[in-house]
Amino acid sequence: MESQESGDVTSIGATTSIGDWASCAADPGYRAAVLDLLGALAYGELSAFERLAEDAKFAPGLVDKAALARMASAEFQHYQQLHDRLAEVGADPTEVMTPFVEPLEAFHRLTAPSDWLEGLVKAYVGDAIATDFYREVAVRLDDDTRDLVLKVMADTGHAEFAVERVRQAIEEDPRVGGRLALWGRRLMGEALSQAQRVVAERDALSNLLVGGSGVKGFDLVEVGKMFTRITEAHTRRMAALGLAS
Amino acid sequence: MESQESGDVTSIGATTSIGDWASCAADPGYRAAVLDLLGALAYGELSAFERLAEDAKFAPGLVDKAALARMASAEFQHYQQLHDRLAEVGADPTEVMTPFVEPLEAFHRLTAPSDWLEGLVKAYVGDAIATDFYREVAVRLDDDTRDLVLKVMADTGHAEFAVERVRQAIEEDPRVGGRLALWGRRLMGEALSQAQRVVAERDALSNLLVGGSGVKGFDLVEVGKMFTRITEAHTRRMAALGLAS
Repeated sequence: MESQESGDVTSIGATTSIGDWASCAADPGYRAAVLDLLGALAYGELSAFERLAEDAKFAPGLVDKAALARMASAEFQHYQQLHDRLAEVGADPTEVMTPFVEPLEAFHRLTAPSDWLEGLVKAYVGDAIATDFYREVAVRLDDDTRDLVLKVMADTGHAEFAVERVRQAIEEDPRVGGRLALWGRRLMGEALSQAQRVVAERDALSNLLVGGSGVKGFDLVEVGKMFTRITEAHTRRMAALGLAS
Repeated sequence: MESQESGDVTSIGATTSIGDWASCAADPGYRAAVLDLLGALAYGELSAFERLAEDAKFAPGLVDKAALARMASAEFQHYQQLHDRLAEVGADPTEVMTPFVEPLEAFHRLTAPSDWLEGLVKAYVGDAIATDFYREVAVRLDDDTRDLVLKVMADTGHAEFAVERVRQAIEEDPRVGGRLALWGRRLMGEALSQAQRVVAERDALSNLLVGGSGVKGFDLVEVGKMFTRITEAHTRRMAALGLAS
């Protein structure tokens, strides 16, 4: 997962340390919220692995196939780090991931790419939105969790690859741009809709987001600003692809 | 790729060194044969990545899904090592892999698993046969190539995982054993048939196997013995799964 625009987004959210995991996790509400967050992130990585591996099958050649397999493999390494961290803090990784399986699978069902280019745009845009969101949240977490989240959100080279391939396709056939622009809007809509569903169902997580669990969370104005920043970053990314958002 | 039985098989084929890559590759026939071998192996790993990632989708739970994703990721790392080695010796990895795409894809088309257990048996048996074959050949190659081949053929934990899952399924429903035994025979048949096709089409490779390129290859009697050993190892593996071969 990665984002070319993330530099702009995370710098706005930078805050001071709230302490390390050991001190923060003494609060059961905080602990539950972070386990939720890591569970969602871990299943997201496993799911990204599957999606990229699936896209690799439709790659137009061996070089593209291997490039997608490389990214899928990188996502799996991220999953492994999150899995190991969950086990390390005494959580059952499967149990923690389970609540997020259905919302993520629903997102993928509703946004199944019909070809190679739609798959590339989805991976690029979807991962970038997720990266922006997690980085916004990460800067408000304890030092240990923040470092882990920022590490697994590091660039896997996906963005550059997708941008190059999509721009080239639009250059060869400008009509492709119109179709992919619509696709990008649909992706953003479904992502927001599933994110809302998760926040509505997971009290600990939403408390963390709106600052209700005693730690330095977001207030509602800040949540609004965060979504504005994520949406603006999405717009810039679509433009980088040569698409109107 | 791995084999539980490989200890038996490779020990038989142990021979003395024929020198390093630099000295052996001065012979263009030897160089072409090794590039063929590494090309087949590299595409085999990429293809194993795809197949395992595909099987992960049908895993009955998150733990199994992650286990298959982990193995897929390990196969990709092997692919990467082979790719880098091909580039290092001045070959074009894509060009070298291309002749093996169609035979491997034909094998996968003809042996598409219809469920999770068939997928497990295929991955286990197919990888083991490939591992036995490459290890038999590896001991006759120059030191550098041999070390690389043995390294990428190292155990990825797949065998143990598959054996455990398949035995458990047969214990729960013994009828499953009959179906999977037939499946195992079909896999062995198709693997031999595609291997023959590759050897028939690739002169350099078959010269290496039957000792026609001036290096220490197999003679025809040895090729026969090698196939006997591989078939025997297959029989033992099927027995380990609780299946008659």
